[in-house]
Amino acid sequence: MKLLIKNAKILPVDAAMSVIENGWIGIDGSTIVLVEERETEAVLAFDADRVIDAKGKMAMPGFVNTHSHSPMTILRCYGDDLPLNEWLFGKMIPTEEKFSKEDIYWGGMLGMMEQIKSGVTCLADMYEPSNILTDMVVENQIRANIAGPHITMNPEKEYEEYVAHIKKWNNSHDGLIRESAIIHAIYTYSEEKIRARVAAAKEAGTGMQIHISEAPFEQAQIFEKYQKTPMQMLESWGVFDVPTVAAHCVHLTDGDFEILKKRDISVAHCPSSNLKLGSGIADVPRMLAEGINVSIGTDGASSNSNLNFVEEMHMTAMIHKGNSMNPLVVNAKEVIRMATVNGAKALGFGNEVGSLEVGKKADLILVDTDKAHLTPLNNPFSAAVYSMQGSDVDTVIVNGKILMENREMSLVDEEKIKYNVNKIAKRLI
Amino acid sequence: MKLLIKNAKILPVDAAMSVIENGWIGIDGSTIVLVEERETEAVLAFDADRVIDAKGKMAMPGFVNTHSHSPMTILRCYGDDLPLNEWLFGKMIPTEEKFSKEDIYWGGMLGMMEQIKSGVTCLADMYEPSNILTDMVVENQIRANIAGPHITMNPEKEYEEYVAHIKKWNNSHDGLIRESAIIHAIYTYSEEKIRARVAAAKEAGTGMQIHISEAPFEQAQIFEKYQKTPMQMLESWGVFDVPTVAAHCVHLTDGDFEILKKRDISVAHCPSSNLKLGSGIADVPRMLAEGINVSIGTDGASSNSNLNFVEEMHMTAMIHKGNSMNPLVVNAKEVIRMATVNGAKALGFGNEVGSLEVGKKADLILVDTDKAHLTPLNNPFSAAVYSMQGSDVDTVIVNGKILMENREMSLVDEEKIKYNVNKIAKRLI
Repeated sequence: MKLLIKNAKILPVDAAMSVIENGWIGIDGSTIVLVEERETEAVLAFDADRVIDAKGKMAMPGFVNTHSHSPMTILRCYGDDLPLNEWLFGKMIPTEEKFSKEDIYWGGMLGMMEQIKSGVTCLADMYEPSNILTDMVVENQIRANIAGPHITMNPEKEYEEYVAHIKKWNNSHDGLIRESAIIHAIYTYSEEKIRARVAAAKEAGTGMQIHISEAPFEQAQIFEKYQKTPMQMLESWGVFDVPTVAAHCVHLTDGDFEILKKRDISVAHCPSSNLKLGSGIADVPRMLAEGINVSIGTDGASSNSNLNFVEEMHMTAMIHKGNSMNPLVVNAKEVIRMATVNGAKALGFGNEVGSLEVGKKADLILVDTDKAHLTPLNNPFSAAVYSMQGSDVDTVIVNGKILMENREMSLVDEEKIKYNVNKIAKRLI
Repeated sequence: MKLLIKNAKILPVDAAMSVIENGWIGIDGSTIVLVEERETEAVLAFDADRVIDAKGKMAMPGFVNTHSHSPMTILRCYGDDLPLNEWLFGKMIPTEEKFSKEDIYWGGMLGMMEQIKSGVTCLADMYEPSNILTDMVVENQIRANIAGPHITMNPEKEYEEYVAHIKKWNNSHDGLIRESAIIHAIYTYSEEKIRARVAAAKEAGTGMQIHISEAPFEQAQIFEKYQKTPMQMLESWGVFDVPTVAAHCVHLTDGDFEILKKRDISVAHCPSSNLKLGSGIADVPRMLAEGINVSIGTDGASSNSNLNFVEEMHMTAMIHKGNSMNPLVVNAKEVIRMATVNGAKALGFGNEVGSLEVGKKADLILVDTDKAHLTPLNNPFSAAVYSMQGSDVDTVIVNGKILMENREMSLVDEEKIKYNVNKIAKRLI
């Protein structure tokens, strides 16, 4: 299928952060083959099967959500405004224990749909059982980095089975899926288990998803045990030999920053989750100043309480200015790069997506800018970060396939998904 | 006109913060005459001219935006990510100086429309010339507290004319308008001018709109001059003898908190503006703990960069938890009260609007909850604050009149407003 998008204001998110005022994008199969500033000979020669007129719309690379737990939508707004212990042990865990596989499927389908509806074309997901996530990714035709199983049922054969599992899924489904090993966190895994997961990732040639330094208790607990920070201990166990995306990184020492830089660790900054749980505010201005690859994550809906990626970009652009009392930190272009190219690099898709350039995979969105809150469109980068709403995302394309058009889901049944999640919530909550 | 709304989930925002799962609201002219939990005899006897079926929708009091400068939409995203001085003196002021009255009219019409589209039914506005704002309020049929002229052209007769002006507009237009005196800020007005404005407000029987303690420079400058804080100096000049809505209040001393409490000053908390300009984060948890009437403001689009009130509620609920590292502060119900009843009190409409109760004026919104990000609706208060988007506001009613229905503006021409603002921006920016 050859798809032509015409008359779009294009933000390619290339190295120059250029803007094409009225451009054409040609997609052949899964690949971008044309990005033109006007209706060139190449455009005229492009034999499109379908043409989308994007007049009044802005084309951008799709957003990359580098940390989520999609099925937790079932628990949205359940147990809000409670102390962490009551929330976790009184509400979250007892309800999650009652989830059937089918519940997890519907919760995850809703979570992925919600992400797509705010412009996400590539996501990291982490939930049990991880195979259901993989199935959902295929059904949604979204691009994803899936964390492998957290709990394994066969301790004797765990290592071999783990390697086989992540190897099997990594680079599967037409390259849409990267599979990672998982270390849930240093405070939930033993040293032995952590070392085994690293070895498995190395053997299988995959990356690693991990939570690091989310809340002060983690720092305190690890420091008491080892007189080192979580980042330092994980480094000493060789975790960062493997390409790692580290969620949160809210509480870091100077030494931790050195490790982030030296080992080229990608950070998944989750501002809403960190704010809502009272975890704190990560030092993103310093991360950016030190050249660390910072990306953006929604985390799960239970600690957010939505998976609206545009809101997360907005939070990222806003909170650090207020927190540091400096309006110059974390500017609009930086946030857009965090949401696209940085995210793609974090999830192992850096060569394939994150920008709209010839040869890249066609993961892109059209944003309807004919809205009161985007009028006048004085600066498209600022508008995308400071003014835009998730609901302005009109069309979502992944790997050349249309996942949403005019805000209607193309491949999945939105009403059926909402119906089933409502039924599950009624039963469990 | 008698309007009946049926099958709504109702959050009346009464003292008990009750929830009506499937309720009826009857409106006779401008007044709420029925709020019923089921189809009672009174509902059956209500002879409605029009019935709205609100199945799948949530009815709430309309939101009260207690600080804005609507016409600044023209400058949206213009000069973002710049130091304050360059932003203000290099971009804002030179462009504002070129605004014609017509420019201000269209910019303000867009700003008011944007607010209505995110559920605002009552707003505070502050811009020059203030008469244009009053005209716009009438055209939009919105409820408002308008700050009187900032600059006056006739210094000899200033006092008399000021009193006459604010007296004339206060309580005008079927009670939709409150007019306030204005003190722009302690660092822009002389003591004499401040005292004259207070005397005028007292004589006319109006309130006062003022910016207080927005940024550290204000504190430093006033302390150097008087060895007191801005709040203390304004108190010593009698400003708070008049009902005051104080925007920002980011930098306060213990003594300032005492004044806020003792003088029952209403605070307009503007989280996005304070974050984006790097002004800091106001201590809202302390304000709430001390029983201060805290409300919420968007400020102008040039320092925000939108007038999406739902986003402002969301910011208010999120940032203080992260900033104080305490997930229990500023909970969902508190934010909803800030956005409704507290705002109504701040703007002098406390007896008339802010809750959905019999005898109150019919200022209310219907929120479409049939959205992925509001599914499942486990807790309507949390959902409204943590998950809801501005675009979920489906219908807006002020004083019994429908201003927006199914997201279509009923009284103003959205396309014409956007067209004109785009034309102005093209000319000036």
